[in-house]
Amino acid sequence: MHERKRIEIVVERVRAAEVTDLLDRLGATGWTMLPVLAGRGRQGLRQGGDLSGVLDNVVILCITGEAVVARVMEAREELLGARPAIVSITDCTVLRADHF
Amino acid sequence: MHERKRIEIVVERVRAAEVTDLLDRLGATGWTMLPVLAGRGRQGLRQGGDLSGVLDNVVILCITGEAVVARVMEAREELLGARPAIVSITDCTVLRADHF
Amino acid sequence: MHERKRIEIVVERVRAAEVTDLLDRLGATGWTMLPVLAGRGRQGLRQGGDLSGVLDNVVILCITGEAVVARVMEAREELLGARPAIVSITDCTVLRADHF
Repeated sequence: MHERKRIEIVVERVRAAEVTDLLDRLGATGWTMLPVLAGRGRQGLRQGGDLSGVLDNVVILCITGEAVVARVMEAREELLGARPAIVSITDCTVLRADHF
Repeated sequence: MHERKRIEIVVERVRAAEVTDLLDRLGATGWTMLPVLAGRGRQGLRQGGDLSGVLDNVVILCITGEAVVARVMEAREELLGARPAIVSITDCTVLRADHF
Repeated sequence: MHERKRIEIVVERVRAAEVTDLLDRLGATGWTMLPVLAGRGRQGLRQGGDLSGVLDNVVILCITGEAVVARVMEAREELLGARPAIVSITDCTVLRADHF
């Protein structure tokens, strides 16, 4: 077992590509994007499925190492800015070390 | 980095609003609801996509602090009751402290 | 609160049943499968929604105990094989002990 970090980001779908581009640039070897049905945050309730999709959020998962997490923290202003994004980081272990 | 808790709840979609209402009442500042394709648990296999939607589950994520987690534990009977819900709690850190 | 493990597996949708069958066989009492919108990994960018569905991934969550995690590690060759699966494991606590 190999220790890694799991980064989970909740962000507006229209801004998701900015986030994944940033992860790519910071050296993440991969990420996974999940759809969101609804959410509540500072901006109030968001319900997916409106025609514009502007209100939709997504969840972006990224399993990575300490080095990328350190760069994410340094790039935190770019990542968060004025954006209503939630970034949480959890310790995890992975079965295969060579992927991350 | 700021230490928080990540609550993850798997619950029937028809009961999801009860859970998010409870989180709101207990002081959570937000939550995110994700769709589920399929699952297996005590009730056997559940496959999303039936017309009624009665069998659908959702996943509710909530990043919050110790105080809300303590209240969730106190309200555990209300949260779980006889419901086939799975509630798991993980330590995490967040980039922005003021949101949770 | 009871200590458990949260296993999260990102795998191709066409191979998801092999993974959930393996979890069942290894003694997991349940799992939850979530849809994925897009992802990037060793195979490059994957975008859900192609007609064949061949490129789609899913996320499989499984809350379980140490014993099942040990068996998952022993069965790692079968689980991973040549498959582009990501398996990450996180410590968690659960509200209800009897389910896992």
